[in-house]
Amino acid sequence: MKVTVLGLGSMGTALAGALLEAGHETTVWNRSAGKDEALVARGAARAATAAEAVAASPLVLACLSDYDAVHGLLGPLAGGLRGRTLVNLTSGTPEQARASASWAAGHGIGYLDGAIMSTPPGIGSPAVMLLYSGSPQAFAEHRETLASLGDPVGLGDDAGAASLYDTALLGMMWATLGGWLQGVALTGADGVDAVTFTPVAIRWTAAVNGFMSTYAPQVDAGVYPGDDATLDVHLGAIEHFVHASAARGLDPALPGLLKSSIERAVAAGHGGDGYARLIEAVRAGGRA
Amino acid sequence: MKVTVLGLGSMGTALAGALLEAGHETTVWNRSAGKDEALVARGAARAATAAEAVAASPLVLACLSDYDAVHGLLGPLAGGLRGRTLVNLTSGTPEQARASASWAAGHGIGYLDGAIMSTPPGIGSPAVMLLYSGSPQAFAEHRETLASLGDPVGLGDDAGAASLYDTALLGMMWATLGGWLQGVALTGADGVDAVTFTPVAIRWTAAVNGFMSTYAPQVDAGVYPGDDATLDVHLGAIEHFVHASAARGLDPALPGLLKSSIERAVAAGHGGDGYARLIEAVRAGGRA
Repeated sequence: MKVTVLGLGSMGTALAGALLEAGHETTVWNRSAGKDEALVARGAARAATAAEAVAASPLVLACLSDYDAVHGLLGPLAGGLRGRTLVNLTSGTPEQARASASWAAGHGIGYLDGAIMSTPPGIGSPAVMLLYSGSPQAFAEHRETLASLGDPVGLGDDAGAASLYDTALLGMMWATLGGWLQGVALTGADGVDAVTFTPVAIRWTAAVNGFMSTYAPQVDAGVYPGDDATLDVHLGAIEHFVHASAARGLDPALPGLLKSSIERAVAAGHGGDGYARLIEAVRAGGRA
Repeated sequence: MKVTVLGLGSMGTALAGALLEAGHETTVWNRSAGKDEALVARGAARAATAAEAVAASPLVLACLSDYDAVHGLLGPLAGGLRGRTLVNLTSGTPEQARASASWAAGHGIGYLDGAIMSTPPGIGSPAVMLLYSGSPQAFAEHRETLASLGDPVGLGDDAGAASLYDTALLGMMWATLGGWLQGVALTGADGVDAVTFTPVAIRWTAAVNGFMSTYAPQVDAGVYPGDDATLDVHLGAIEHFVHASAARGLDPALPGLLKSSIERAVAAGHGGDGYARLIEAVRAGGRA
């Protein structure tokens, strides 16, 4: 396949490298000179202009600093993109992705918005997820080529979905890492190294994943049985987390916040429900 | 092996059932009558008194309502326990576990304190972790028998460790589930079902586990290189999480808290460091 990569920051460079590695005819372009030398040495074609880069391939990947840069570069090149597929891997919001999809549709350009759930060194590994949303036809047509970059996960025809999932998944990451830090600090205060605690913590995440799988259909159904553990039981248990943190002089903020969300739901009369009940308060802006 | 189980609540009953299933000669006792009938029908021996139950086996598991109940029951039976191993699976604090270990040591009783990282239906599965801390000799001697209950994870000779890990792991669970709920609410606001989002979220946890593995030795070394992503980069990205939540009317508390911890570290001049730097603020009670 012929593929073009626009933007050779560290991520764009990694993308182009993975395409070359997979044997694709890869054309590269960057606004400032000198970023393409290693890629050209590996067999990439250097385009003198962005227009020339777009003309070189039916599949064009853009990995620029932001959506303003994408529009500034590609707005004038809409005619050249007609009939091609643009995969926009630039970071932005769901709203920006949807606006770009509308623009692309208006110019007969196949459009996918993508989110790369990895840092550049992970690119090319099938263990890494790249999320795509937008034109299902474009995804089906180019899925195999995109698989050179990492496992392509299709999220359907709302072009904003990849960006929204990206934000949601990063949010989960910060929350999980925050809980892990608290656990490291708790056990560390009693003499346990982080490298000793962490393998047990990682193993435990398999159980937590099981809870998510159990709770997801409950959230969708709006029915929250307390058959594994009720919010009353959670509230009793989370007191230990709050007290153990306080007794060791640790930051009380995260344990306190997690406790208060359970406490509010119990106070609102939901103590016999299961954990998944808490979705209602999240949706309601924090009110149980 | 001969094993005794004291306390036949839903967890104690599950423990005794798993021991029977594995072919162990199991003696059971409960303060109130009638809880043992199904177990006796499956082959368990019924002890008329706790003293008789203790005398029946070299390995005695206690799964009672709390540590007061353990001390009330076993305090008078210390002589009968001498030379035996007591595995206390009752929920409590690290301090309570350490006090019980001292008491046991003073009476020549082998002591393990345990934490069961499962609800009763999971008991017996090798996928379930049971954490044990206390006498390494007792753990080595009874590990194989304890494996009938689920995978035995030994945490060394601080008897408080199992309880502390339990609290730390549950804390991680609440944090992760809180992040997952926020992600479910974010994507749900734009029309994505929880059962659609969750498999992607679960897959993403493998990457998050990789971050923990990377950060754990950094925490132990007190050196926080920003080579995968700096706190400056995290701060830029977490703004999207805060804004996307606010734009959808969701509870702002968790995104706000996670952002503020990064923000404080950046304000304190650590923006070029990696995420693991945040451990210092957790340890310092929240001060960056």
